Amino acid sequence: MIIVGERINSTRKPITEALEARDEVFLLNEARRQWDAGSAYIDVNTAMMRAKEPEVMAWVIELIQGEIAEALIAIDSANPAALEAGFKVHKGRALMNSINMEVERRDAIIPLIAEFKPRVVALTIDDGGISKEADKRYNLGVQLIELLTENGIDLDDIFVDPLIFPVSAELQAGNISLEIMGRLKANFPGVHTICGLSNISFGLPERSLLNQVFMVLALDRGLDAAIIDPLDKRMMANIVTATTLLGKDKACRKYLKTYRSGGLDLTPTT
Amino acid sequence: MIIVGERINSTRKPITEALEARDEVFLLNEARRQWDAGSAYIDVNTAMMRAKEPEVMAWVIELIQGEIAEALIAIDSANPAALEAGFKVHKGRALMNSINMEVERRDAIIPLIAEFKPRVVALTIDDGGISKEADKRYNLGVQLIELLTENGIDLDDIFVDPLIFPVSAELQAGNISLEIMGRLKANFPGVHTICGLSNISFGLPERSLLNQVFMVLALDRGLDAAIIDPLDKRMMANIVTATTLLGKDKACRKYLKTYRSGGLDLTPTT
Repeated sequence: MIIVGERINSTRKPITEALEARDEVFLLNEARRQWDAGSAYIDVNTAMMRAKEPEVMAWVIELIQGEIAEALIAIDSANPAALEAGFKVHKGRALMNSINMEVERRDAIIPLIAEFKPRVVALTIDDGGISKEADKRYNLGVQLIELLTENGIDLDDIFVDPLIFPVSAELQAGNISLEIMGRLKANFPGVHTICGLSNISFGLPERSLLNQVFMVLALDRGLDAAIIDPLDKRMMANIVTATTLLGKDKACRKYLKTYRSGGLDLTPTT
Repeated sequence: MIIVGERINSTRKPITEALEARDEVFLLNEARRQWDAGSAYIDVNTAMMRAKEPEVMAWVIELIQGEIAEALIAIDSANPAALEAGFKVHKGRALMNSINMEVERRDAIIPLIAEFKPRVVALTIDDGGISKEADKRYNLGVQLIELLTENGIDLDDIFVDPLIFPVSAELQAGNISLEIMGRLKANFPGVHTICGLSNISFGLPERSLLNQVFMVLALDRGLDAAIIDPLDKRMMANIVTATTLLGKDKACRKYLKTYRSGGLDLTPTT
């Protein structure tokens, strides 16, 4: 499971404040804890910085990579100028978050993909919005895979996000996203599926429980990357446990390693 | 999900002691708590009573049904005389736990099935022991379904147990059992699959976590009955949560009901 640590997101108030104040200590602490918890990428979303987005994006990336040399960033913006500013300073191969099939966005982003050859998150949405139909979103995934491979991105560097509606609003919301994941994995071996799965629980109580259980179902259907909070200990424990139960953890080594490092001790600390 | 409450099992020392002492208060408390937690059947295993098994089985069943009139029992024994003694006193339709394809056992049990027409747990094992091959166990499941239907048992009254090896001993143990469940559900619509899933975690630390996560994977493959401890609150929460996420809980009613009754409050009480 490729973990994208989601915490440095400007839609969260403490993050906006830290970005506004250029609070290096706070932001580096957020980055370090997520990195140590097993993130493959640290997502940086600067949307709330508006006109200053490109400048702030570049600043945060240099800040994090200056402190954690091996860290890679998921450059998360709807603003092509912010994406470009991020790619220009990023060392190593970044993850672009994200492209979709909205014509204007797609056309602005393709040249950046051709230039910087990042790994890419591809959202199954177009100018019609997010469809409730599994076939429609699956087909958008296929179109995005074709578009990205035509622009020199390998399947192993494409992360298709099937998107998720809340199960409180739509009884089949979970099944539809799970079905899309399964079809993409079956028909495009090598491609990744990714999900920011907390939307599934919107409108219901005990959202963490829903998210943690949905993660296990998604792993069963082939989800192999996730945009999550890697400090959610039970989420991470569910991931390693399901991976072991699904026969992908030789001699249960990762499970036992997680156990020995305290990662399976889920008693709340007081 | 049809829950079979597993706690009244004579392989547990406190239960053996209570059975030996005919401790009605203790046994009724075990029965009542499991019933209130949502068991459809209360399993009664008297194996350790040896020669007294038939007498003790009948006594426990009458005890429980005398106190909880609507309770149904899973009559759990390898001893045909104990099964018969149980059926003779049981009110309503019992669950027989279990038949398998060991010739001697099978031939002793078929007449009881023909006489009492119980619902039946069918274990995928024969005189060769438990096979490690998915095909072998799947085929035993098919043979058991055919044998039981020939003897007047409907598909809806058959619960096939694919059995499980520990994932610590066999990397593919989980996948094999999940595959058997999925094939049985796909090829015999209406038949139930059942599992006493704690064997999956044998030999590893944090067994509850493994069992709870395996339950979610099994639900994804169509498991619809389980022999578990219904007082394991997270296990029960995972079941209702996964059922909701899989689109089988209209308007999230069962999830919200469980929440309101405190069933999703998983903070350990001190």
